Amino acid sequence: MIQARVLIRPKEGILDAQGKAVEGALPALGFEGIEHVRVGRIVELQAASADRLEELCEKLLANPLIEDFEIETVSE
Amino acid sequence: MIQARVLIRPKEGILDAQGKAVEGALPALGFEGIEHVRVGRIVELQAASADRLEELCEKLLANPLIEDFEIETVSE
Repeated sequence: MIQARVLIRPKEGILDAQGKAVEGALPALGFEGIEHVRVGRIVELQAASADRLEELCEKLLANPLIEDFEIETVSE
Repeated sequence: MIQARVLIRPKEGILDAQGKAVEGALPALGFEGIEHVRVGRIVELQAASADRLEELCEKLLANPLIEDFEIETVSE
């Protein structure tokens, strides 16, 4: 079995509403010096093979119109 | 500036509704051999210092009651 980790992020240029919300909340909580916040999803799974992971991301896990994804194989 | 990546996952034993939804959709899409799907969030940010990142996670990014978080410092 392969342990895979898929990182899904909003594409550059697409509004990242969650990231903006975090940035907007920082001053009221007293945090300074934090910027460029981007919020995405992480999907971790075990797969019998890595063959179809890219297809899985395109069809089910990510929305390729507005999101980029990156597959990391943690261990085999 | 530090480039940090925060991985936020549902705690073990907490229902991961998104992960279950993915698992439930797999057979209809013809995917086999994929299991233990867990869906979480990833927050990437730049910080002037790593000192308060843990506090930031506890107060704003994660819900410590139901989520675990892990901070990875990608580069300094």
